[in-house]
Amino acid sequence: MKNKARTARSDLDAILAAGFVCHLGVLVDGTPRVVPTVYGATADALFFHGSVATPSLMRAPEAEVCVTVTHVDGVVLARSLFEHSVNFRSAMVYGVPRLVENEDEKLEGLRVVTEQAAPGQWDYARRPNRKELAATSLLALGLNEASVKVRTGPPDDAGSEDAALGLWAGVLPLHAVPGAPVPDPALPEGIALPPHLRR
Amino acid sequence: MKNKARTARSDLDAILAAGFVCHLGVLVDGTPRVVPTVYGATADALFFHGSVATPSLMRAPEAEVCVTVTHVDGVVLARSLFEHSVNFRSAMVYGVPRLVENEDEKLEGLRVVTEQAAPGQWDYARRPNRKELAATSLLALGLNEASVKVRTGPPDDAGSEDAALGLWAGVLPLHAVPGAPVPDPALPEGIALPPHLRR
Repeated sequence: MKNKARTARSDLDAILAAGFVCHLGVLVDGTPRVVPTVYGATADALFFHGSVATPSLMRAPEAEVCVTVTHVDGVVLARSLFEHSVNFRSAMVYGVPRLVENEDEKLEGLRVVTEQAAPGQWDYARRPNRKELAATSLLALGLNEASVKVRTGPPDDAGSEDAALGLWAGVLPLHAVPGAPVPDPALPEGIALPPHLRR
Repeated sequence: MKNKARTARSDLDAILAAGFVCHLGVLVDGTPRVVPTVYGATADALFFHGSVATPSLMRAPEAEVCVTVTHVDGVVLARSLFEHSVNFRSAMVYGVPRLVENEDEKLEGLRVVTEQAAPGQWDYARRPNRKELAATSLLALGLNEASVKVRTGPPDDAGSEDAALGLWAGVLPLHAVPGAPVPDPALPEGIALPPHLRR
């Protein structure tokens, strides 16, 4: 995908804030593995569950990982196929993740992960007990090393000789849209959808 | 994310057919890098542009890569935060990609990539000329080694003691929805949206 690098810190923050699923790249036996997982971001770090990072990451916590968050905003339809592209926003964060062992920091990290995917649930659902907290491994990755790429706008060949072909060109936007909440079929009658999920 | 492995070949094919952006994991100087890129899939292989794969992959075409395609279908809201999850479909394809050098195969691979992101455009837009074809590197990755994981349905804690908390539980579905096509502002008047983009 053609793209432009962005260096403003605000671009990184906005991309991380706009999603909750990242693709985590780790080394397993010398080859790359890419695993989707939920994450949460603060101003300083990105948190994700360690268990998804495969046992090899937990065995080698000093290994560098790459976490990539991508939003696909549209398909760019140019006059030539060569100029076809995708409008997107993507952030790659690199570094050596740190296992979060302090219980308070772990709870705060889990809150950040939860609230990013499901705002309002931290105060609504039952919080992790001691046993659950011990069974959860949480990793923190600093935001010091990151690379941001963004493509926006129409195709790039309006000024080329292909414009004379008289073909339609533009962008087909794509949106991630939430549907209506689907109750658990096992839910007893009379339990109303809480206000924070009605938004 | 909690998940179930799927071993049917049809699950792999369906997940690959349902998207057009993958996350490509490659090794760069001994550390993993995860790059979003467009792809197209046939019954035998997944095609993607080699240029995105970073120069290091082009220098070491015998290196193993991991291509992951993920569709996020919803947020699973359980009674406990510990049981919160994500409904998703994800396919990881592993292997050593092959540089496509034969011109006919390259054109066919580019057709597959184009048609997956923008169905109908291969027959509508201007096809690559010799120079553009030479400037494009295309890689093919066989589908022999893949891992598929899927989570569907309601939360898993309806039968737990947390059900007595009387909390709402269920799934917040997420859909990727195309918006109305946005014409290039440079488009002359009178060029109608072609039928294949009206769908």
